[in-house]
Amino acid sequence: MNLKQLSQLLGISQTTISRALNGYPEVNAETRRKIIEAARQNGYRPNAAAQRLATGKVGSIGLVMPTGAEHQSDVHFGEFLNGLGEVSARNGFHLVIMPTDPRDEDEALRDLAANGTVDGIYLAYMKKNDRRIAMMKSLSIPFMVHGRSWGIEPDYPYLDVDNEGAFHDAASLLLQLGHENIALINGPEGYDFTFRRYRGVEAALAAQGHSLDPDKVSHSVMTDEAGFLMMERLLDQPQQPTAVLCASTALALGAIRSLNQRGLRPGRDISLIAHDDVLPLLKPVNFSVPLTTTRSSLRAAGMRVAERLIAQIKTGQNEPFHELWKAELVVRASTGPAPR
Amino acid sequence: MNLKQLSQLLGISQTTISRALNGYPEVNAETRRKIIEAARQNGYRPNAAAQRLATGKVGSIGLVMPTGAEHQSDVHFGEFLNGLGEVSARNGFHLVIMPTDPRDEDEALRDLAANGTVDGIYLAYMKKNDRRIAMMKSLSIPFMVHGRSWGIEPDYPYLDVDNEGAFHDAASLLLQLGHENIALINGPEGYDFTFRRYRGVEAALAAQGHSLDPDKVSHSVMTDEAGFLMMERLLDQPQQPTAVLCASTALALGAIRSLNQRGLRPGRDISLIAHDDVLPLLKPVNFSVPLTTTRSSLRAAGMRVAERLIAQIKTGQNEPFHELWKAELVVRASTGPAPR
Repeated sequence: MNLKQLSQLLGISQTTISRALNGYPEVNAETRRKIIEAARQNGYRPNAAAQRLATGKVGSIGLVMPTGAEHQSDVHFGEFLNGLGEVSARNGFHLVIMPTDPRDEDEALRDLAANGTVDGIYLAYMKKNDRRIAMMKSLSIPFMVHGRSWGIEPDYPYLDVDNEGAFHDAASLLLQLGHENIALINGPEGYDFTFRRYRGVEAALAAQGHSLDPDKVSHSVMTDEAGFLMMERLLDQPQQPTAVLCASTALALGAIRSLNQRGLRPGRDISLIAHDDVLPLLKPVNFSVPLTTTRSSLRAAGMRVAERLIAQIKTGQNEPFHELWKAELVVRASTGPAPR
Repeated sequence: MNLKQLSQLLGISQTTISRALNGYPEVNAETRRKIIEAARQNGYRPNAAAQRLATGKVGSIGLVMPTGAEHQSDVHFGEFLNGLGEVSARNGFHLVIMPTDPRDEDEALRDLAANGTVDGIYLAYMKKNDRRIAMMKSLSIPFMVHGRSWGIEPDYPYLDVDNEGAFHDAASLLLQLGHENIALINGPEGYDFTFRRYRGVEAALAAQGHSLDPDKVSHSVMTDEAGFLMMERLLDQPQQPTAVLCASTALALGAIRSLNQRGLRPGRDISLIAHDDVLPLLKPVNFSVPLTTTRSSLRAAGMRVAERLIAQIKTGQNEPFHELWKAELVVRASTGPAPR
């Protein structure tokens, strides 16, 4: 059944039907209910062209996807995309992805905003002092940031995890367990989330009169392989750390492989806490020694970003402007008292 | 610099410039070289709207992304998408993703083909007797299938891995090593690749006068957790298998966890071969006991699908019509002679 037929069946204009099915606020609740029911029963699904005519909207969210070595293995991106996609599907929105060499990202973003294929843009992989925020503010298209940008006035809409708080809590737990020699296997340098996690650990140590040894901090892509290499480097140092914080369960997978090869047991010989984005592939409870984690679901973040961006596209409203999610500190067996 | 300015600078029409930069064949090589160089030097990047005007093409590839539980953790999808994205970026193409409840996939595909947002469609997650192929053939838009569909005349363009051959080779190796009681932890039921892998194992066993015990075959999503559960089920049987084939390294990760918990060592107590999609997160050499695998890169497949689809969009040519990639059997330490 097409829109015209549904319109004739119900005696309601095509425009009203489109608006009702796309969740625009001008249609009253009873009419909307009736329309949705009839659409279901008759197998009608709004077509993008009709939708565009009726609403002036394309029904799509745009994003720039960096391609190349650093992003090759990004299970984190896939998980977020899945959440974004699920809510988009529910709202009849599609996604326009602009894959781009990271060096051309600014131009890709400008193109995406200007070329008429999207109604709103989702911005991610935020860096410190990220100039893309000023650019987005200068363009007249709704946007939503996942993460934040250190050094820039927070006058843009964002959803972020409290990375500083999460790593502060994790480091504080380790200090309470008697650890003083703490290492950090962090994500790639220059990103806002990486920097805030570093600050969280540093602040927790400083509060107890300790400091974070620069030789005990490393930055890398968040893969199993990098986690292995970074842990090997730490264990080769004359004074091995007694506890290690990892920026991802993917890094932890490799870090634990390094421990296993040396016969070191997590939670007994060395304590380990990882940030858990709730990747279904790597569940912390399923590690040989269940992992203590700071937990915040990337999929849920993707769903929420889509929800807010779509609401903003449809109604012009964008409340709450800022959302900061607290990560949970979940204690399992990979943390224990400091040895000796 | 915009298209008009570049046109004035070179004394070449805007249409010719667009065609040259988008790789259309009508422009001679010398002119194309000159235009590309000038665009580089002057920082000109074609804008989607201009491109569309000049070529009648949108510059995009469309795909339907199933959302929901079964696809939640699909690292395989992310890896393929990355390859697809890299080649698209290089050609100035973007991706339009239609996230969809799997039950609405046919309609989503029809929408995507009809709504004018894409120049070509990539079809994946092929099932046996997949009716989407007939649908795509009836629509006048270039398409390319990743995988094949058992039961349907192969008169459509595809790129597939020889799944049957790969699992035939793997099972044959196990038979040579003296294994007769072989199990298969397969992907989700109903998919073409799953069925062909099953057939490969069955044929190898039949060739040696053995058969595949139905109790030793399981189907599930390809996650670590499912791999663990499936291996537990096999090890709880009165007659444990001496060798197990896994449809993914993600499944193998969980399967090995189950072995570890029971003190069984891969390659000594039980042999294991997994299919390796070359996911950077799960490298077979990095498993506690390096994994024997059948290897074929999903990322490379994504790159090749984009390459062929874009060529088809630009030139109308689609050769070779069928591509079947042979997986390599890479022997590492997780396979050994049958015990006893």
